[in-house]
Amino acid sequence: MRYEIQYRYLIKGTSGPFSLMKSTQQPDLFGQVVDSLSDCTGMQRQGFFHEYRDSDPLPSASVLKDIIDLCRAIFFPGFYGRNCISQSTLKYTMGVQVESLYNLLVKQIAAGLCFCTKTAEGESNDPFFAKAQDIASYIIESLPRLRKTLETDVVAAFNGDPAATDYGEVISCYPIIKTLINYRLAHELYMLHVPLIPRMLTEMAHSETGIDIHPGATIGHHFTVDHGTGVVIGATCIIGNNVKLYQGVTLGARSFPLDDQGHPIKGIPRHPILEDDVIVYSNATILGRITIGKGAIVGGNLWVTEDVPAGTRVVQYRK
Amino acid sequence: MRYEIQYRYLIKGTSGPFSLMKSTQQPDLFGQVVDSLSDCTGMQRQGFFHEYRDSDPLPSASVLKDIIDLCRAIFFPGFYGRNCISQSTLKYTMGVQVESLYNLLVKQIAAGLCFCTKTAEGESNDPFFAKAQDIASYIIESLPRLRKTLETDVVAAFNGDPAATDYGEVISCYPIIKTLINYRLAHELYMLHVPLIPRMLTEMAHSETGIDIHPGATIGHHFTVDHGTGVVIGATCIIGNNVKLYQGVTLGARSFPLDDQGHPIKGIPRHPILEDDVIVYSNATILGRITIGKGAIVGGNLWVTEDVPAGTRVVQYRK
Amino acid sequence: MRYEIQYRYLIKGTSGPFSLMKSTQQPDLFGQVVDSLSDCTGMQRQGFFHEYRDSDPLPSASVLKDIIDLCRAIFFPGFYGRNCISQSTLKYTMGVQVESLYNLLVKQIAAGLCFCTKTAEGESNDPFFAKAQDIASYIIESLPRLRKTLETDVVAAFNGDPAATDYGEVISCYPIIKTLINYRLAHELYMLHVPLIPRMLTEMAHSETGIDIHPGATIGHHFTVDHGTGVVIGATCIIGNNVKLYQGVTLGARSFPLDDQGHPIKGIPRHPILEDDVIVYSNATILGRITIGKGAIVGGNLWVTEDVPAGTRVVQYRK
Amino acid sequence: MRYEIQYRYLIKGTSGPFSLMKSTQQPDLFGQVVDSLSDCTGMQRQGFFHEYRDSDPLPSASVLKDIIDLCRAIFFPGFYGRNCISQSTLKYTMGVQVESLYNLLVKQIAAGLCFCTKTAEGESNDPFFAKAQDIASYIIESLPRLRKTLETDVVAAFNGDPAATDYGEVISCYPIIKTLINYRLAHELYMLHVPLIPRMLTEMAHSETGIDIHPGATIGHHFTVDHGTGVVIGATCIIGNNVKLYQGVTLGARSFPLDDQGHPIKGIPRHPILEDDVIVYSNATILGRITIGKGAIVGGNLWVTEDVPAGTRVVQYRK
Amino acid sequence: MRYEIQYRYLIKGTSGPFSLMKSTQQPDLFGQVVDSLSDCTGMQRQGFFHEYRDSDPLPSASVLKDIIDLCRAIFFPGFYGRNCISQSTLKYTMGVQVESLYNLLVKQIAAGLCFCTKTAEGESNDPFFAKAQDIASYIIESLPRLRKTLETDVVAAFNGDPAATDYGEVISCYPIIKTLINYRLAHELYMLHVPLIPRMLTEMAHSETGIDIHPGATIGHHFTVDHGTGVVIGATCIIGNNVKLYQGVTLGARSFPLDDQGHPIKGIPRHPILEDDVIVYSNATILGRITIGKGAIVGGNLWVTEDVPAGTRVVQYRK
Amino acid sequence: MRYEIQYRYLIKGTSGPFSLMKSTQQPDLFGQVVDSLSDCTGMQRQGFFHEYRDSDPLPSASVLKDIIDLCRAIFFPGFYGRNCISQSTLKYTMGVQVESLYNLLVKQIAAGLCFCTKTAEGESNDPFFAKAQDIASYIIESLPRLRKTLETDVVAAFNGDPAATDYGEVISCYPIIKTLINYRLAHELYMLHVPLIPRMLTEMAHSETGIDIHPGATIGHHFTVDHGTGVVIGATCIIGNNVKLYQGVTLGARSFPLDDQGHPIKGIPRHPILEDDVIVYSNATILGRITIGKGAIVGGNLWVTEDVPAGTRVVQYRK
Repeated sequence: MRYEIQYRYLIKGTSGPFSLMKSTQQPDLFGQVVDSLSDCTGMQRQGFFHEYRDSDPLPSASVLKDIIDLCRAIFFPGFYGRNCISQSTLKYTMGVQVESLYNLLVKQIAAGLCFCTKTAEGESNDPFFAKAQDIASYIIESLPRLRKTLETDVVAAFNGDPAATDYGEVISCYPIIKTLINYRLAHELYMLHVPLIPRMLTEMAHSETGIDIHPGATIGHHFTVDHGTGVVIGATCIIGNNVKLYQGVTLGARSFPLDDQGHPIKGIPRHPILEDDVIVYSNATILGRITIGKGAIVGGNLWVTEDVPAGTRVVQYRK
Repeated sequence: MRYEIQYRYLIKGTSGPFSLMKSTQQPDLFGQVVDSLSDCTGMQRQGFFHEYRDSDPLPSASVLKDIIDLCRAIFFPGFYGRNCISQSTLKYTMGVQVESLYNLLVKQIAAGLCFCTKTAEGESNDPFFAKAQDIASYIIESLPRLRKTLETDVVAAFNGDPAATDYGEVISCYPIIKTLINYRLAHELYMLHVPLIPRMLTEMAHSETGIDIHPGATIGHHFTVDHGTGVVIGATCIIGNNVKLYQGVTLGARSFPLDDQGHPIKGIPRHPILEDDVIVYSNATILGRITIGKGAIVGGNLWVTEDVPAGTRVVQYRK
Repeated sequence: MRYEIQYRYLIKGTSGPFSLMKSTQQPDLFGQVVDSLSDCTGMQRQGFFHEYRDSDPLPSASVLKDIIDLCRAIFFPGFYGRNCISQSTLKYTMGVQVESLYNLLVKQIAAGLCFCTKTAEGESNDPFFAKAQDIASYIIESLPRLRKTLETDVVAAFNGDPAATDYGEVISCYPIIKTLINYRLAHELYMLHVPLIPRMLTEMAHSETGIDIHPGATIGHHFTVDHGTGVVIGATCIIGNNVKLYQGVTLGARSFPLDDQGHPIKGIPRHPILEDDVIVYSNATILGRITIGKGAIVGGNLWVTEDVPAGTRVVQYRK
Repeated sequence: MRYEIQYRYLIKGTSGPFSLMKSTQQPDLFGQVVDSLSDCTGMQRQGFFHEYRDSDPLPSASVLKDIIDLCRAIFFPGFYGRNCISQSTLKYTMGVQVESLYNLLVKQIAAGLCFCTKTAEGESNDPFFAKAQDIASYIIESLPRLRKTLETDVVAAFNGDPAATDYGEVISCYPIIKTLINYRLAHELYMLHVPLIPRMLTEMAHSETGIDIHPGATIGHHFTVDHGTGVVIGATCIIGNNVKLYQGVTLGARSFPLDDQGHPIKGIPRHPILEDDVIVYSNATILGRITIGKGAIVGGNLWVTEDVPAGTRVVQYRK
Repeated sequence: MRYEIQYRYLIKGTSGPFSLMKSTQQPDLFGQVVDSLSDCTGMQRQGFFHEYRDSDPLPSASVLKDIIDLCRAIFFPGFYGRNCISQSTLKYTMGVQVESLYNLLVKQIAAGLCFCTKTAEGESNDPFFAKAQDIASYIIESLPRLRKTLETDVVAAFNGDPAATDYGEVISCYPIIKTLINYRLAHELYMLHVPLIPRMLTEMAHSETGIDIHPGATIGHHFTVDHGTGVVIGATCIIGNNVKLYQGVTLGARSFPLDDQGHPIKGIPRHPILEDDVIVYSNATILGRITIGKGAIVGGNLWVTEDVPAGTRVVQYRK
Repeated sequence: MRYEIQYRYLIKGTSGPFSLMKSTQQPDLFGQVVDSLSDCTGMQRQGFFHEYRDSDPLPSASVLKDIIDLCRAIFFPGFYGRNCISQSTLKYTMGVQVESLYNLLVKQIAAGLCFCTKTAEGESNDPFFAKAQDIASYIIESLPRLRKTLETDVVAAFNGDPAATDYGEVISCYPIIKTLINYRLAHELYMLHVPLIPRMLTEMAHSETGIDIHPGATIGHHFTVDHGTGVVIGATCIIGNNVKLYQGVTLGARSFPLDDQGHPIKGIPRHPILEDDVIVYSNATILGRITIGKGAIVGGNLWVTEDVPAGTRVVQYRK
């Protein structure tokens, strides 16, 4: 076997690292390891260490989780969030939630802006905060529109599943609804050039549901994914209205050109376009900047790298 | 490109929403958005808003998580739950756990019943609680039987994996065991017509393990799924004993008839039947009310929509 | 239908268990069920119950989570862990983290050793602790080496994805980085014959990211998996350097010999070898102790059970 | 010495309980002790054990703490409670707080009513809830009045202490303000015949500040206590407006008549009346149903058991 | 004024430390301060630094709080601890509580023994654990006896206060009951020569209620303290049965002999003896090894340093 | 009785608020009360409402608690704070603690400065942060000096109490040590003109121990208070070295001059001076700007308003 095992002295329980270890004084061990791990000069040069300037806020996974929880409660009151919702006091609850969402968004957006911007020591981070306030205000203003779109997604999930009993079950249980709340918020932030945060939001949904939608993808209304685990939707995908995917579907890139240093060139459209009313069955893989025409149906377990005309149906060849 | 970008004024960093924003007074912004989001009349009519009656309990994802944690500790003491378990005091621990489980179940079942029932204002919710107590008592009574079945699942997982070192590792680590604890409890509740809760339980396992078993599916003893991510088992599936699936297997519906309004008709058997001793390899997709006969083996990455006779083996055609 | 429904008295809402239930006194119910569930003699004989000796520590999923959080903060300071990291005080933070990691590792490793060892009542567990201290010291000493390897993985993920904007995004968001931190630590512990803990660590990553890497697999540097959901890498896999996988790829066993009692024989090499520079596209399934030669490319959705020569490319046959 | 030491075998480290203990099997020990402690028949007869009826809520110290925290935030927004308070969104915050307070009050008041009422098995607790809703509504209606009174208390504390820098310091730091929030709420509940809860509220303040005001006491506006530790104000005290006490002052009962069984007779006025503008200096003890007349001053460390005329001053006799 | 202000450069807001500070580089500041604070050699020699041996447990205030919470729930089930207590399942709850209490006690007692014993490096701490198990077993065995005594204390508090409505209110609210639970447990541990823990327990009660009872004091049954704030009961006090104190009473030492180095000599009886049926009114101070005879009454605010004969009454002289 | 009961319609359970209540619609109730409580214009004018400017930090009781916990761990490592302290890694722990303390102090000090300063809308709060950094740096620099003084306090407490077994018990249990950690930190901040925070710190100790030391008081080394409940030390007190107080001692103001509007004039020396080596016994009250001379002893329960010459002893007159 050509792949050398690195642990050369781990030979079947005979004298190994342990006897050697015992002579090593532990404090010395700590000292050396800590010194080695703290020598961040080289690490930083390469981008593996991030030193924060004083008073810069930090993007925080747990705060982003709070943001998502607030959005769920704002979009679907009575299904998520506070336990007791009545029409008479909904306004108070909604007001506090919207205000909280605004405040959390400002901090996280500013954190994203600081995180990704090289600034000289002593430079103020006030401009980041001003920009973050503008962006957060825009998001707040967009909430009613986002809710309308999400409601169409609930309808699509319900209509597409005979096992669904009512909208309540869809909203409370269906992974695609949770994923789309994250995605639709992340997409707004992505379009406003907020760095880092959009991707963190969609990866949170990816971890929770197994559905990986890049925040850069464009997705129409009445969109649904059944079951969902393993679905991948790439950054430059464009998806029309009334589209339905099943679990394991990949809408990916076929290949991508490299620049002179061998790095992939950013920003080139490289993922499929799915026009309105397309259905893609489970585990199909659709790659490259091709178009699946309006109303086309792609069968399960297929590997598709060329255009599919509108209204047609492609299926797997089977012996 | 036909898919209009909604953010029409987001043209490459030039004057965009930000300058417009600044003239908007934030309090006004909040006021308008909150009013819009709180106008729940229309929303409620369509089923996107759920108003609770006073004193109705609510289904709670975090309480359901406690219920699952209790079940794990009850079914496999010493592997889950309290740290220190000795034979002499196991009875006390078990007693408290069983009592707690009963109390939590009563509340959650009643919550599910209230959630899904339209009741007139002022009507008492006592009948829901009485029914919930009956159902919870039945579940408590079923615990020893459920544990027996789950023990066969541990044996099946252990026998099916050369990498497994002992039952302890299987119980502590294997995703299918965690999934089956949720599923087997959810299935009992589903058979007793408890709404919402069963699906929430299986979706919790889906999120944790990537294995999506509908609570309506019927599954025999000695069942196992290796690795598991991406497995989908539909609502009307019937699975015999000693069945083994690999990751990515779909047991789904091929199509479903619609009613006059274009809504799928509920409750029609539409998922496969797998008889005893069937093995299905990874990423196979089996669709429709077909039967995979006793002892049949379905190869990986297959797309199966017709009956497979007992004892046969179907594999992918490869160039 | 041949599969008997167990709930024989659940006939369409007519008199069912509920009326029967009401005559059952609940205290009696609890008493019987608790007695049944606490009769652990048989259960223990079969390995379904684990009784702890006094003062034995226990493997703990939540402590293992703390261990992983510490590792993330040690490997990528400023991206994970404490909010405010400056070069001047990094040493203190690193020192406390390394010391904490050592202490937690000692307890969990000792717990793993106790858990899997039958000891006579009254026998001391001191030897387990001494061994655990040796192993933990070795891990601490290995941290700088592990970090170097993980940095190559970050580079590989960045180079392989046109959508990645910088190393920071890769470290903060990409599921494969989270998975590899767990795997690379788990693999060290696995090679040192620590029981249970390595598998718990990789299953934690499996649950979080959908990528299931067995701690026994051997994986070279500059390794990456794109998207990742549904990837399975078996216990005896050997993967070279610069290898890239896509979502849904299985590196599995084809079949495994059974011993006289029908149990699978442990420890036989049964998973693929992937040499340097191999790429495997999404949902491909590679089974058995075969070799994918240096630089080979395996197309998506393939089922591969024979060697693939170096430098070649295999793709799915499509009608 | 007449007081026999119970630990007769604890003789200076010689053979004591330890050697005896070792022969005792611990499981037996647990069994016996648990049986003894669980034999609640006698205990219950005497009132030392409280068995709850199913679904009865329970008075909860931690919920009462939440109630007090809500009251502090409602009475003094910006000093207690949510961090960010602006005039434009104060209404939302206040609305949610008032609604939460109402809901918590209903449950705790109902709990107090259930706790103290003997009901037959099977009897409904609905009337308790209806009564609790009425009482809670009355409290909500009283909030603006209570805040007005508490504002006079802030003014009195500020005017009475040269060390106070502004109202903000008084509201944030002064023990008497915290105590009076508890007392003034508790007194309302006491007047409405809510059992148990009022005393729990004032004892919470007693523990936090060392000021023990019985909820039955009647206290006018502009009341203050400086420092406060050790102050005791009895159940039938009547205190006018503009009264100031110092630390360690007791307003207590001198003696109380017993009934035929030797139990103290309840409800007899037995504590002092302090008219408007009285000042009592530190550690003075005023006992019995006497009157300290308008504007009187009682010197420190005095023992007062007879009326003090209006406008006079009594001081300690010193050698 | 002779007391020099140390902050010599803090002259009325003129150029002070701030301008000086700014030239100080903060990293240097941290480095110097940390070095100074970490130079523990001298500190340790004097006893101001405690270095722990590996694996020694530590006395923990928060675990002691758990111990007290368990005792409250064990002694007065239904008033403290788990919410839902029914006679049918009380045994399970009690069993778990007693087992938990035993385990926590073993660790804390062992921690106390380790903390206060100088042991050579490498010496085992097993003997401490063996001794701790013996002591904890004795405490468990004593629980029924302790509960009996505490029940007499509840009766005494109820009989002594016309404002008390029932035993439930006394158990739930009265500071003396909380204090006596801590004291009576602490006293047992003190008599068994457990170091540190007893004092930590009584100081926890002191902080919560303002009643400071040294664990060494001996106190009979039917003991009560009304209100309680400021009461002090010294280490060598002996208190008979049916004794009642009011707030602010001190049972202290008058003076204590010093040894050759000027340190107070330990262990000499120096606090008062109160015989049966004594009453001491508020803020009385009783000092030295004197005896307050059976049935004597000591008036409030008195300073008593000589014996008080049985049956007599002493009161403050007032002008 | 002259003190009118406000609850005029609460006449012995007859028709009271409840029947009236029921006609009141609850939503209306909430609306009116919320509007009334949110009308903060008048409230703000008077200083009862504090509106925060965006991004201003807020003084936080829970962060101040963290600051105190950090100080305890820094001053007495091994007795407070992290469990496992060894000399070899103490430096790392101390470094992290000191850095954390600095960061928390900066935020809280800035919060205090913002809280108490009227600033125009739009004005930057940067100067507050710069000042807070200077002050926090000075505090960090002072830590070694503060620790030295606190060590003398431990010695004084030990020497003054025959019941103390070692320094460890004093550090872990004695209320005066906890109080002095708060006071000595608060005094530094007070001398540096930090508003609000110092008083919040000493009130936290007051609540925990019953010892109320104003942060403005000046206190020498080797200071101790035995038991401590009820002790009050006023803002302009000056206390020398080696002074010992007992519980219940007041060092207060006798009276204070008012200005033209009847408000007390701030900043006038009005509390006692205690020279070196003074002892004050329990419950003594010493009032006004008088001097207790070096080595004087003040007996318990005394009321002292005139100078006590050095070396003398004053005691209570008793019949």
